[in-house]
Amino acid sequence: MDFIKQPMEIESRSMEIIAPHLQAFNLDEKTTKVYSRIIHAAGDVEYAPIIRVGEGAIDAAIAALAGGCDIYTDVEMVRTGINKRKLASFGGQVHCLIADEKVAAAAKAEGITRSMAAMRTFGAALDGNIVAIGNAPTALFEVLRLIREEGVRPACVVGIPVGFVGAADSKQALAENGLVPYITVAGTKGGSPIAAAAINAMMYFINNERG
Amino acid sequence: MDFIKQPMEIESRSMEIIAPHLQAFNLDEKTTKVYSRIIHAAGDVEYAPIIRVGEGAIDAAIAALAGGCDIYTDVEMVRTGINKRKLASFGGQVHCLIADEKVAAAAKAEGITRSMAAMRTFGAALDGNIVAIGNAPTALFEVLRLIREEGVRPACVVGIPVGFVGAADSKQALAENGLVPYITVAGTKGGSPIAAAAINAMMYFINNERG
Repeated sequence: MDFIKQPMEIESRSMEIIAPHLQAFNLDEKTTKVYSRIIHAAGDVEYAPIIRVGEGAIDAAIAALAGGCDIYTDVEMVRTGINKRKLASFGGQVHCLIADEKVAAAAKAEGITRSMAAMRTFGAALDGNIVAIGNAPTALFEVLRLIREEGVRPACVVGIPVGFVGAADSKQALAENGLVPYITVAGTKGGSPIAAAAINAMMYFINNERG
Repeated sequence: MDFIKQPMEIESRSMEIIAPHLQAFNLDEKTTKVYSRIIHAAGDVEYAPIIRVGEGAIDAAIAALAGGCDIYTDVEMVRTGINKRKLASFGGQVHCLIADEKVAAAAKAEGITRSMAAMRTFGAALDGNIVAIGNAPTALFEVLRLIREEGVRPACVVGIPVGFVGAADSKQALAENGLVPYITVAGTKGGSPIAAAAINAMMYFINNERG
């Protein structure tokens, strides 16, 4: 069998295939990278018309990342997908409490998901940092409550939970929150590789800017 | 905001929403579970017509898992997504060599991807075990070469790499391999949560059968 085996060639060929699907959207370079990495991670060009990037969100996230901010996530798969070596080179790390025993006990006691209890536990620690949600709508709803009711202000919320129960509603609420920069995807699609891809796309530019 | 917060209620409501999208396919109970968990993981009902399950593949995988087989995967995100506590309860564990230094060196020397070099390194260890590929077409092509040229016989190959360079071709080659049971998805879509979801869906039945 003949197939492309060289990593950089796979990457560049993939971006070439994705590019025509983005032409209609008139995106700047950074937004193109975010869209491309999301589409690449899903193998699905139908993401192009449903990605939603709030005004200034990519610049806000890049500035926070370059300044060494941390990333708070709902599930371990997002942590696994984020390029942690690069993040650490800026001074940041990834936090996830889904497997924390106290969080699990609190979730059980309250009849809520563990990822929702995890976001509540993070609370004010989210200030100035990036939230990356790739699985649980309940976690995103809780972050939006923290923003609205408790004045928490993440630098950017990359909120791309997936599924048929609450995901579309939570993402629409994020896009309409009016208080913090956001990156999301309309509808039921999403997931951990999608959230991680958006983060990794933005980190790409910090390396470039530092040269 | 009012939304469903209770994990079991989210799960059952999600399965109710997915069910009508599977009606046309006349699936048995186990296949329905595999389809449902894949669709749930992607938030995408358009997976229904493109999922491909080889004759006897689910039964072969369940038998291997129940017998304590290991799972060999291309990337850490698949490992993260697999319910490892349940797998361990049958006696199995997950292997991934993507971050192995020797594998990285071999890949660099040969100009191939690390996940491809990883599969080559696993080699005959795949016999009787399950392969779960959620990212790299090159890894799946290598597994198919091991099967065809070296007589390696995994119990089942869950091959669901993603993307625009080789993914569709590698998955079609898997579906046509004629030598080992497989679960795959036609076209460019796929990814680590999808491969992990298929594995987790099958483990669900082992508990039930033992229960």
